[in-house]
Amino acid sequence: MAPSTDLDTLPAFATLQALSHQVPDLTDPALLTPDRLQSLRSHSAGFDLFYATQRVDESILAALQALADQGGVIEQFLAMKKGAVMNRIEGWPSENRQVLHTACRDVFGAPHAPEATGQTEAELKKLADFLDDLDQGRLTNEQGQPFTDMIQVGIGGSDLGPRALYLALAAYSRQGRQIHFIANVDPDDGLAVLKGLDLSRTLVNVVSKSGTTLETLTNEELVKAAFIQAGLDPARHFLAVTGQGSPMDDPAKYLRSFYIYDYIGGRYSATSMVGGVMLGFALGAENFREILHGARDMDRAAEERESRRNVPLLLALLGIWNRNFLHRETLAILPYSQGLCRFTAHLQQCDMESNGKSCNRQGKPLFYQTGPVVWGEPGTNGQHAFYQLMHQGTAVIPAEFIGFRANQYDGDILVKKTTSQEKLTANLLAQSLALALGRQHDNPNRFFAGNRPNSLLMADRLTPYSMGALLALYEAKIVFQGFLWNINSFDQEGVQLGKILASRLLDHMAGQQEDAQYDGSGTDALGWALMQIAGLTKS
Amino acid sequence: MAPSTDLDTLPAFATLQALSHQVPDLTDPALLTPDRLQSLRSHSAGFDLFYATQRVDESILAALQALADQGGVIEQFLAMKKGAVMNRIEGWPSENRQVLHTACRDVFGAPHAPEATGQTEAELKKLADFLDDLDQGRLTNEQGQPFTDMIQVGIGGSDLGPRALYLALAAYSRQGRQIHFIANVDPDDGLAVLKGLDLSRTLVNVVSKSGTTLETLTNEELVKAAFIQAGLDPARHFLAVTGQGSPMDDPAKYLRSFYIYDYIGGRYSATSMVGGVMLGFALGAENFREILHGARDMDRAAEERESRRNVPLLLALLGIWNRNFLHRETLAILPYSQGLCRFTAHLQQCDMESNGKSCNRQGKPLFYQTGPVVWGEPGTNGQHAFYQLMHQGTAVIPAEFIGFRANQYDGDILVKKTTSQEKLTANLLAQSLALALGRQHDNPNRFFAGNRPNSLLMADRLTPYSMGALLALYEAKIVFQGFLWNINSFDQEGVQLGKILASRLLDHMAGQQEDAQYDGSGTDALGWALMQIAGLTKS
Repeated sequence: MAPSTDLDTLPAFATLQALSHQVPDLTDPALLTPDRLQSLRSHSAGFDLFYATQRVDESILAALQALADQGGVIEQFLAMKKGAVMNRIEGWPSENRQVLHTACRDVFGAPHAPEATGQTEAELKKLADFLDDLDQGRLTNEQGQPFTDMIQVGIGGSDLGPRALYLALAAYSRQGRQIHFIANVDPDDGLAVLKGLDLSRTLVNVVSKSGTTLETLTNEELVKAAFIQAGLDPARHFLAVTGQGSPMDDPAKYLRSFYIYDYIGGRYSATSMVGGVMLGFALGAENFREILHGARDMDRAAEERESRRNVPLLLALLGIWNRNFLHRETLAILPYSQGLCRFTAHLQQCDMESNGKSCNRQGKPLFYQTGPVVWGEPGTNGQHAFYQLMHQGTAVIPAEFIGFRANQYDGDILVKKTTSQEKLTANLLAQSLALALGRQHDNPNRFFAGNRPNSLLMADRLTPYSMGALLALYEAKIVFQGFLWNINSFDQEGVQLGKILASRLLDHMAGQQEDAQYDGSGTDALGWALMQIAGLTKS
Repeated sequence: MAPSTDLDTLPAFATLQALSHQVPDLTDPALLTPDRLQSLRSHSAGFDLFYATQRVDESILAALQALADQGGVIEQFLAMKKGAVMNRIEGWPSENRQVLHTACRDVFGAPHAPEATGQTEAELKKLADFLDDLDQGRLTNEQGQPFTDMIQVGIGGSDLGPRALYLALAAYSRQGRQIHFIANVDPDDGLAVLKGLDLSRTLVNVVSKSGTTLETLTNEELVKAAFIQAGLDPARHFLAVTGQGSPMDDPAKYLRSFYIYDYIGGRYSATSMVGGVMLGFALGAENFREILHGARDMDRAAEERESRRNVPLLLALLGIWNRNFLHRETLAILPYSQGLCRFTAHLQQCDMESNGKSCNRQGKPLFYQTGPVVWGEPGTNGQHAFYQLMHQGTAVIPAEFIGFRANQYDGDILVKKTTSQEKLTANLLAQSLALALGRQHDNPNRFFAGNRPNSLLMADRLTPYSMGALLALYEAKIVFQGFLWNINSFDQEGVQLGKILASRLLDHMAGQQEDAQYDGSGTDALGWALMQIAGLTKS
């Protein structure tokens, strides 16, 4: 594995800085031509990337490739997939773990990390048996009826990725099977879901790697109370996805348990059992395997050293260009597919939790920017919302568009001689070009400065396979960027402080009756004061 | 009305620039004390604002007040409410309209704009009659059964605000009434909604002010085709909310029509019939009136000149401080209430479409930043997603937290001696303090720089009244900022370019068979080339 060094120490960094003083002007009609559109494109595992509307030229692309080479990005990626301990900070206490989410889908021959993939195979077998038991009627509710509904109880990585994938693929759902999600510790989240569900035919999939996540355990209790009130035995309805040996790994309490290993980070866990149990129930085992297949094919495609033949790497490098050389603070991810309505929220998590870091892998502070704010909503909806600012605001927002040539459901209609799907994709292409080209106009309020960098990912259709590939594409992009920034993209120390403070506040609230004269100091006392001022203490 | 002048020409601008060189340090234990928490708070129409965790002091607050005074913010707000033509660019072709969304709820005595409020009263009467006809069984489906479902077909302003309010208040739904939404021109959006609905008992509320919105008219046809296929007469199921005299204002095609006037911008229209028809059906006329009542009370509270007694104004000024003096490009809006799961998406629209502008109200370019990127997801979910970057990333992200003292549904439970609602609010307060205070730590990966500015809005419970007040709070905040930036917050010229380009691409696609040799030039030819390269033309 190449030594990990800071981005600004790589020789290509200075080259790119020099190049950033004269950036290609996308509004110049001589620049953005059909030839450029034809030439600046790439392809990996079913996805085309069109990036003529990024502010790059051949010199910049060559320097970005040099950056990737000098940073040893592909070497690090291969090392990661083979089980190197990438989740660490040298010389400091840290998680010290392997990073092997790719092993979860490396089940189509010649795995990079045979031991981890073996553990995946064992879990996949347990899942297949479970799904088969449901299908064959060996596993039913108390009345011998099949289960129709599943509630996924989890938060963060145990919620966003699985939820995004389910919504993306709901068109492929098995008839008569419905999924519901509870994540927020806000009791209204769980209570609204429980209202109107037939619990007697409902499975509950509780997902927590550590088995100690406050929100998830609390919501498990909330759901359990509803089952008990309905005269149902939770142990006949509840499933667990957790770490082997965690407090949740208890056959007396759960119908079945599935394991997730500590080499799989929560935000990278959608293709593990964290997503697999629910997706298998909803879509069937074969469709879940298709998701894995797409992800694995993209994982392999991402091993290519030549960035122009490696879509995840190219997207990572274009992101670094926009972030560190053009100084853009945010990234809009804009899928033109209603199925991807929560995919951006998942990427917001995966990207910002991975790369929202300020110290490097040696524990030294960094003097360049790391992960951007990732946000977005599906088009065409976004066009009627925030695109105004993207076109005419004072901030420049790089965008990544995602589109498909065909839609999912039958029943599209012709209105004014075009289908809805054609209207969707025409809008997608029009936005990509309009952001880049801008428009001259006498009326200053109708003038568009253009030069808004963007790229376009396109596949044939949103299917289990392409969804898996798209997920893996972004996972690889995010870790490539982390390697270049020389940060640990696999820990999340930044979530600890708020958690600790909340937990101390709750301790005080729990003991409030006995301990009304709380005499703590510093942060704790401040929290307690705010709680009183905000009117949140019991009267 | 005060003359509209650029922000950087106001005398207080220079004062604030000078003050920005020495900003209060929130990590200093002597600064952020219980006294400061107690002192930096404000209240309007049921909402408390706690802003001790913003990087302000008495001098900065005084200069911000001077900025508001010098900018004539309250004078402009009052002029707007009385019917001044605020939607215009002096000396250039522009919409030249009044801005009277506040008149939609000024129905509780002594209205500022009696004529517009009179039109509102007329629509409210029509709505009451319609709802009464449903309740009394005078209006039923073909079989004499009551309607149980409503599909709202609209996009942008006709979708996001109404949808956010419905989701926020679903706990108050009338039994047996369900709402569904179709917005995206992606056929999968509509087809997924239609799947599994009993159309015979479904009303369809088609919302388009102009009566010409491409997405909405297309989706209306999609839904209509499903009704016809089911042997149902659309004219007995479809309602229209549109401008008087628009192409949709046609009693032959709709069961009932409700009007929206051109003095109400789409993104400010949730309290007009755009939201009213659907919300009245779902929640009942009384609950819709409560929404209006809350909004009107906040509209009145926002007339206060003293910013420390005017929450919307104070929030606007704190936003200007963060944007123009501390140079923060984004704003996270983080509701700790699952009901508000789409409220941030609505505000993203309302704020970014209103204030994503680069020229002033005289058509001159601006040399300071305007609207930020607004984004966010509900807590506690966000804590397990992007808060890592907020705490430890290289970008500083101002945050606006929103919380409630009580939840909506019955059935909260005690786990470890605290309720879920207590866990939720403890997390909320902990995050606010943790972002501000940071934490010293030897391990650089466990160090938190702090000084992340944030504020906290708090009300007793999310009800129709408080939802109305919260909506109006943000609407007022957004227009106050627009006044200070001297921009027209009420037009959206930035959405036109993409629309024009998409429409030309569709014209070519529609005529493709006859006109395969499209020989256009410039942007059109480029769009056509991209369409071919992306594999999107018919084969």
